[in-house]
Amino acid sequence: MADSNYDVIVLGSGPGGYVAAIRCAQLGLKTAIVERELLGGICLNWGCIPTKALLRSAEIMHYAQHAKDYGLKIAGTIEADLEAVVKRSRGVAKQLNQGVTHLMKKNKIAVHMGEGTLTGPTSLTVKGGASGSGAEEKLTAKHVIVATGARARDLPFAKADGERVWTYRHAMTPKEMPTKLLVIGSGAIGIEFASFYNDMGCDVTVVEMLDRIVPVEDKDVSAFLEKSLTKQGMTIMTGAGVEALAVSGSGVKAKIKDKAGKVAETEFSHCIVAVGIVPNTENIGVEKLAEMDRGFIQIDPYGRTKSKGLWAIGDCTPGPWLAHKASHEGVTAAEAIAKELGNKEVHPHPLDRSNIPGCTYCHPQIASVGLTEAKAKEAGHEVKAGTFPFIGNGKAIALGEAEGFVKTVFDAKTGELLGAHMVGAEVTEMIQGYVIGKTLETTEAELMNTVFPHPTISESMHESVLGAYGRALHI
Amino acid sequence: MADSNYDVIVLGSGPGGYVAAIRCAQLGLKTAIVERELLGGICLNWGCIPTKALLRSAEIMHYAQHAKDYGLKIAGTIEADLEAVVKRSRGVAKQLNQGVTHLMKKNKIAVHMGEGTLTGPTSLTVKGGASGSGAEEKLTAKHVIVATGARARDLPFAKADGERVWTYRHAMTPKEMPTKLLVIGSGAIGIEFASFYNDMGCDVTVVEMLDRIVPVEDKDVSAFLEKSLTKQGMTIMTGAGVEALAVSGSGVKAKIKDKAGKVAETEFSHCIVAVGIVPNTENIGVEKLAEMDRGFIQIDPYGRTKSKGLWAIGDCTPGPWLAHKASHEGVTAAEAIAKELGNKEVHPHPLDRSNIPGCTYCHPQIASVGLTEAKAKEAGHEVKAGTFPFIGNGKAIALGEAEGFVKTVFDAKTGELLGAHMVGAEVTEMIQGYVIGKTLETTEAELMNTVFPHPTISESMHESVLGAYGRALHI
Repeated sequence: MADSNYDVIVLGSGPGGYVAAIRCAQLGLKTAIVERELLGGICLNWGCIPTKALLRSAEIMHYAQHAKDYGLKIAGTIEADLEAVVKRSRGVAKQLNQGVTHLMKKNKIAVHMGEGTLTGPTSLTVKGGASGSGAEEKLTAKHVIVATGARARDLPFAKADGERVWTYRHAMTPKEMPTKLLVIGSGAIGIEFASFYNDMGCDVTVVEMLDRIVPVEDKDVSAFLEKSLTKQGMTIMTGAGVEALAVSGSGVKAKIKDKAGKVAETEFSHCIVAVGIVPNTENIGVEKLAEMDRGFIQIDPYGRTKSKGLWAIGDCTPGPWLAHKASHEGVTAAEAIAKELGNKEVHPHPLDRSNIPGCTYCHPQIASVGLTEAKAKEAGHEVKAGTFPFIGNGKAIALGEAEGFVKTVFDAKTGELLGAHMVGAEVTEMIQGYVIGKTLETTEAELMNTVFPHPTISESMHESVLGAYGRALHI
Repeated sequence: MADSNYDVIVLGSGPGGYVAAIRCAQLGLKTAIVERELLGGICLNWGCIPTKALLRSAEIMHYAQHAKDYGLKIAGTIEADLEAVVKRSRGVAKQLNQGVTHLMKKNKIAVHMGEGTLTGPTSLTVKGGASGSGAEEKLTAKHVIVATGARARDLPFAKADGERVWTYRHAMTPKEMPTKLLVIGSGAIGIEFASFYNDMGCDVTVVEMLDRIVPVEDKDVSAFLEKSLTKQGMTIMTGAGVEALAVSGSGVKAKIKDKAGKVAETEFSHCIVAVGIVPNTENIGVEKLAEMDRGFIQIDPYGRTKSKGLWAIGDCTPGPWLAHKASHEGVTAAEAIAKELGNKEVHPHPLDRSNIPGCTYCHPQIASVGLTEAKAKEAGHEVKAGTFPFIGNGKAIALGEAEGFVKTVFDAKTGELLGAHMVGAEVTEMIQGYVIGKTLETTEAELMNTVFPHPTISESMHESVLGAYGRALHI
């Protein structure tokens, strides 16, 4: 006999999970959520949000250090109080975590704290860890959504210990400031921490196996960012690999093979490992119920697994592993479930995988959507691409942020917007314009005829489109 | 006999004028531009751009003053060096002015410096002031575009003298910091200067005749901004009027009638008059050639006046008086002229007046497009409106910028996006997303199905749309 019976149980409360639960509740379904640690999952508590808080402190520090450039006089020294910076970041995470708690209550979603394990497609046990009782609950539902997310991948030869070898989670709550930091991996997470610690005055080296940093981005963006970070004092080694890490009480010795194949040993005070993620799909009983591929749960466009009633969304399913992709899948799955349960008003909308933006909050920021120029050509498109540099933009100059550019990629025959790639100030807030355009199947003509407000950096978006057709005005 | 003969002459080199000239040149037309003072006009030299530079200094000062909130320690005092702040702003203006000079050269546009006067629809004289010679040139063209812009309106009882009574132009290059400042008028220009001087530590009073500040914005935006600016220490008087100004060597005495009808005299060190604009259409010979209305040149959707060959764009024509409206009209007029001259490839696109965004760079910023909720109802729409506060947005909280909101207005029957209204951090860079959506005739459904990147403030745009249909997730 089950202790409780629901329409839907969501296993995991990250952005995918809690959004799925909220949407289920909005649609009138009796909904529960199971969380083993903290409501809001990694993203709110140990990911997107607290890193943005850290990066904001670094940004303000950067401004204060450059106050003279803006005509301001700061008489004394400017220092980061590491404990206070981390405390602020933790405070932000806590506020968001409490926000999710409030949303669960408001939407009358039952919260079961503990380790959930599937006993069938629509039943599970929860070992009450966090809820205190220690007792095991048995829950059943008409539908179960797995949203257990992912965690940092360890290096085979050096497990993160939180002392000298860190994952993002340790890097977010440093007890001391690294003096010489090695960052292994230059995806979004690696580069954001490299940027943060560099801005905080630390000596940073980034080692990337592939031939360029932020390798999922357009090549021009990678090249621009590498140049900018190098100018900021970072050491960047591409086409390089860490072959061994020897951890001691005072630091880590890393054997690094460089691009030329030369191996050298260098000592660092700390090392951040950011070499990708591993889905949290072990020990939850899912592998007997769903098709798996390298640990990821395989789903249809609405989130269905091969077992009736069992769904999956977010980072425990195929990528991109991004919070906004997870929460969109959460809404889709919730609506598809409501439809299966008889709701005739909902129209679930599967994710358009060609239109998921990505943002990296290093300094300068990166934002992009769709195909890079190279991928567009690989896919057989005849391409028209336009690039506009921020140095031609009045607002960017007025802000003192003239470092950056916008690149747009169109299909030369149809004018379809295939992709957009930006690096520079504010781009993470700007990219949605192209995403909206892609949703509405824009071509270059509609973007050209759109009046972008002056003076904004977003005018560079317009100029880049004009530029793809030889019509840029300010260059 | 004319000294020179062109396809197109543009009279005035603000954003409308110089963009028109560049587009004409791109289309292969022999083009000249006439400017009496500085290439780039008011916007680049005395308007949009240098004010944004000033406001950026104020913003950085604000950050430095609040460094502690971000976990940073600044040991000494933080002061604005007014001369350096103004010098930076002038430097930015100069850089942009040189940029336009370069663009004219690159596009092979002939520049005639001096006062231009129309002698017919397609002929004019230029009295060489700035070009030095003092000689009078006679120019003719197949088409002439008037883009002479506008200037600040004076109060009938107190002409701006640059000493105690300022227009925006004086306010941009203060020789001393006002101690107690009166700002008359709360449109974009008045509020931006009020915000700048308030941030710089000055005691600021804003007097607005209408019943709310930034009166063209949605009522909710006005109310939010008034509350915010009041909290920042500003005195705001709405429904109030300045009845007299007595200027002395040490300041101005203002007789102000408040909302209740009570008149009191208050002394200020300086006063900024920002009560609107007057078109620059006197003494250029246009009134005999074009239909005029209160000084504004009347035009068709492509910029044609009633005289064949004579066109007008920008601030000397009916509003909105915004640089991006002017430059869009510049492109349209240039293309329409090219078409008249036989170019079969161009397709001039008249301005969609319902889709021109507006931005105000006070702190917090404002950005909007389309109809306010009240105007939408007035126009007979049954309305669905959604509002989402930044306090529900993770990135805004992480940035320490949780003050703001997004409001979207839809037609309840068709789902058409009628308007969007935002106040808060970064909104001036975000508004283009809605503008692109409106160009593509979006309804709520496409905006709901768009994946907005996390964590960004732009997620509030999504939530506000969801909210209009009772589906907001984070509130």
